[in-house]
Amino acid sequence: MINKISETKAFGGRQIRYEHQSSTLNCTMQFSVFLPPQAEQQSVPALYWLSGLTCTDENFSSKAGAQRIAAELGIAMIIPDTSPRGDGVPDDPEQAYDFGLGAGFYVNATQQPWATHYHMYDYIVTELPALVEQHLPVTQKRGISGHSMGGHGALVMALRNQTMYASVSAFAPICHPTQCPWGHKAFSGYLGDDRAAWLDYDATELLLKLRVAPPMLVSQGEADNFLAEQLRPDDLAAAIAETGVEATLERHQGYDHSYYFIASFIEQHLRFHAQYLL
Amino acid sequence: MINKISETKAFGGRQIRYEHQSSTLNCTMQFSVFLPPQAEQQSVPALYWLSGLTCTDENFSSKAGAQRIAAELGIAMIIPDTSPRGDGVPDDPEQAYDFGLGAGFYVNATQQPWATHYHMYDYIVTELPALVEQHLPVTQKRGISGHSMGGHGALVMALRNQTMYASVSAFAPICHPTQCPWGHKAFSGYLGDDRAAWLDYDATELLLKLRVAPPMLVSQGEADNFLAEQLRPDDLAAAIAETGVEATLERHQGYDHSYYFIASFIEQHLRFHAQYLL
Repeated sequence: MINKISETKAFGGRQIRYEHQSSTLNCTMQFSVFLPPQAEQQSVPALYWLSGLTCTDENFSSKAGAQRIAAELGIAMIIPDTSPRGDGVPDDPEQAYDFGLGAGFYVNATQQPWATHYHMYDYIVTELPALVEQHLPVTQKRGISGHSMGGHGALVMALRNQTMYASVSAFAPICHPTQCPWGHKAFSGYLGDDRAAWLDYDATELLLKLRVAPPMLVSQGEADNFLAEQLRPDDLAAAIAETGVEATLERHQGYDHSYYFIASFIEQHLRFHAQYLL
Repeated sequence: MINKISETKAFGGRQIRYEHQSSTLNCTMQFSVFLPPQAEQQSVPALYWLSGLTCTDENFSSKAGAQRIAAELGIAMIIPDTSPRGDGVPDDPEQAYDFGLGAGFYVNATQQPWATHYHMYDYIVTELPALVEQHLPVTQKRGISGHSMGGHGALVMALRNQTMYASVSAFAPICHPTQCPWGHKAFSGYLGDDRAAWLDYDATELLLKLRVAPPMLVSQGEADNFLAEQLRPDDLAAAIAETGVEATLERHQGYDHSYYFIASFIEQHLRFHAQYLL
């Protein structure tokens, strides 16, 4: 069951917001969808977009300008929230921006009080696609992309589910979360102190272990404040080089961590995914 | 004097935010600018964008996706705030969204306590262009556009200053503010009860009086909640027909009052302005 809570036209398609009761997250969730005009006639492939820290489903929807190209290509976009939400869902005691609400980090939490609700990995990989493919005109051709924390999520999900996603891309992803402060905080909180459990949620470590990857495009701004300490693209680049997988990691001089960077290169990313989705 | 408070790269150009002390508004103001890549070599024409109720200079900057086309065409965008701001600036006693802060309505207020600060008309027509043309690489070729309250402002300013603006466009403008609730509230508050003073700020009335207009493009969504009561495009259409000026008023089925509508048609508007600015 999904309930439409708003709809408006955009670039000839439909920008829609849905609400549903998530059995994975044990709360009511909202997500946004863009259906291109082609979806009025037939089912179309879907690109999942995972947003970064502090975001909801609305940031990408309103700021990236992706609808223009999705409408041209005939690709739906599925844009979930970044954490469970609602009165019963615990937040970081200090309401930090990088843990708790708005910061689910796309893991299945094993530690209390988080384990009851914070299962964003299963939500994105299992519950949401099943729901979307049952109720909306989308096929089982899926790509996945995201920004920052969401870029981390997209890379991890695509690496661990290579038959499920035809392509993956990321903007300024957290490439090596077991080796950066954001990852340390999130993983120790949600997953506990056993670092072996962290490795399943680290794109660089997963690539080094699996040594195979779906078609991958990563874009990183060189003026990004989080570059060296949190994002560590050099670590992912080294893993790409060592494993010899076909992946592109582009660096762009002058671009920062904001949606201006995403908007500037989202067309390139959508056309990259279109090669594998259409 | 203008002080840069932030800058990032977008679509190969520069998205910049400035702060300055406004002598017209008697307060510190912020405004945003997009400089296309061409402005690194030579001065370029400028399109002024006037935002709607509740907005700052950031809404259009982050949501319209206009930088992509401005960068292609070589047009700068100047994006002011929608009212005076700061501790000394009075707001609506009830903090209504449609009067006071965020709702300057692009008039020169004559009534106290508003008259000390609320002179957005003079700010946009006189102070801001002088400042921008002195400090930034823009020429004196100017176009003006806006949304809702800002569409009203753009139409009024272009009609009253036809040598100053080469072209004007508007998204869902308040076409006939002397005849709608938003206009009644704003004009009676800022301008007082003498309705003769209101006519200088009403695009439909100005067109009927002047009977000449710069090249004009107006876009209106048919699913706009404010269409009949507040925006009254039929009144402007009748004035266009009666005066015989060359103006295009387009209606788009299914589009609402949001930035999704603006994003969907901003490319058309920028290419319209480019005909007269380049």
